[in-house]
Amino acid sequence: MGDSTQLTDLPIHEFLERLGSSDPVPGGGSAAALAAAMGAALVAMVAELTIGRPAYAEHEEAIRKIRFDAIDRRVELLDLAQQDADAYDVVVRARHLPKETEAEKAARSSALEAAMVDAARIPLRAAVVASEVLDLAERIAPIGNKNAASDAGVAAQLAAAGIRGALLNVRINLPYLAADEPMRASAPVEIARLEALATNGEHAALAAVDARLVAS
Amino acid sequence: MGDSTQLTDLPIHEFLERLGSSDPVPGGGSAAALAAAMGAALVAMVAELTIGRPAYAEHEEAIRKIRFDAIDRRVELLDLAQQDADAYDVVVRARHLPKETEAEKAARSSALEAAMVDAARIPLRAAVVASEVLDLAERIAPIGNKNAASDAGVAAQLAAAGIRGALLNVRINLPYLAADEPMRASAPVEIARLEALATNGEHAALAAVDARLVAS
Repeated sequence: MGDSTQLTDLPIHEFLERLGSSDPVPGGGSAAALAAAMGAALVAMVAELTIGRPAYAEHEEAIRKIRFDAIDRRVELLDLAQQDADAYDVVVRARHLPKETEAEKAARSSALEAAMVDAARIPLRAAVVASEVLDLAERIAPIGNKNAASDAGVAAQLAAAGIRGALLNVRINLPYLAADEPMRASAPVEIARLEALATNGEHAALAAVDARLVAS
Repeated sequence: MGDSTQLTDLPIHEFLERLGSSDPVPGGGSAAALAAAMGAALVAMVAELTIGRPAYAEHEEAIRKIRFDAIDRRVELLDLAQQDADAYDVVVRARHLPKETEAEKAARSSALEAAMVDAARIPLRAAVVASEVLDLAERIAPIGNKNAASDAGVAAQLAAAGIRGALLNVRINLPYLAADEPMRASAPVEIARLEALATNGEHAALAAVDARLVAS
């Protein structure tokens, strides 16, 4: 990014300007993680608006657990948004290494391969955590405060978009990994698993939200 | 929100804390608009990474136009995120009006109906602008810098989630509109149109991104 500012300390309007600038960092990986972090925050809000209300006392314990987990995922996803930017910064630096001589080419290539491990590993972790947020949204949608049903639905949409967006970032970086890097074999399986979770979780959460919007 | 801070001036980590708090403002409407604003920023970044590169000279003019439009939509969506929070704040205040006497009940009810017009109108506008961002992502995905194909894909995911999330906020508020409010009749038609745009645009954009990820 050209300086050491933490993304998460930036005012939103400034973050959006940097996201849209000609600097490739921050990019889609950070944006996907932040979308899922907003989803986690919305799950926590729905829980807050439910806890302590007599009409929802039956689910109090489950919802306290959901709130706790949602806050945990929000914090991790915010950290992953930063980590993704840092990792991609290392990739950009490796790309700018000299490639005149054979020795320089070899050094640049192995620097890029090393940098790509984090550039693939971090969005893969973000997709996993986003899938946990989607699960929390799916669980709170039918039992949370009915007046916040749309918020549970938005949480599910943002978590699903976060999963799919993070996985695109894994996929674009995989071809640059070293031939013997284990993620080359393991990531495609994990990608397929997480894509299925995104589709199923999104449908289930939105069906629950729809039922409550119609009933209200 | 209890104070007059502009959401968009908040550092990201603080915005996420407020989003997750027991205060219903900001809520899902602001989060959906912000997700689409991140999508618009990513479209602008892909354009920035494409403009001026000889390999993409053929599409230079189209991409300059896409960049211009993406920046415009980013600014409007950020403003809509704030407007949504402000509008819902008015709803919350109306809900807290006294409802002891018949006169108080009538006054509270008409204050709520009036507040709900903005609470439905603003996310409907956000869904329209998010659908324009999705269109921009779909257009840049096949012709933008191939190395940023995943960013165009994340932009499409975030725009689609922004549309659907904003529409959930319209739907939850519609039943509270006055019986003679024109949006009661017009909004369902517009909601169906925008949902179809979200589905079709997302598929088209991701097919274009997939083709470029496989080819790379």
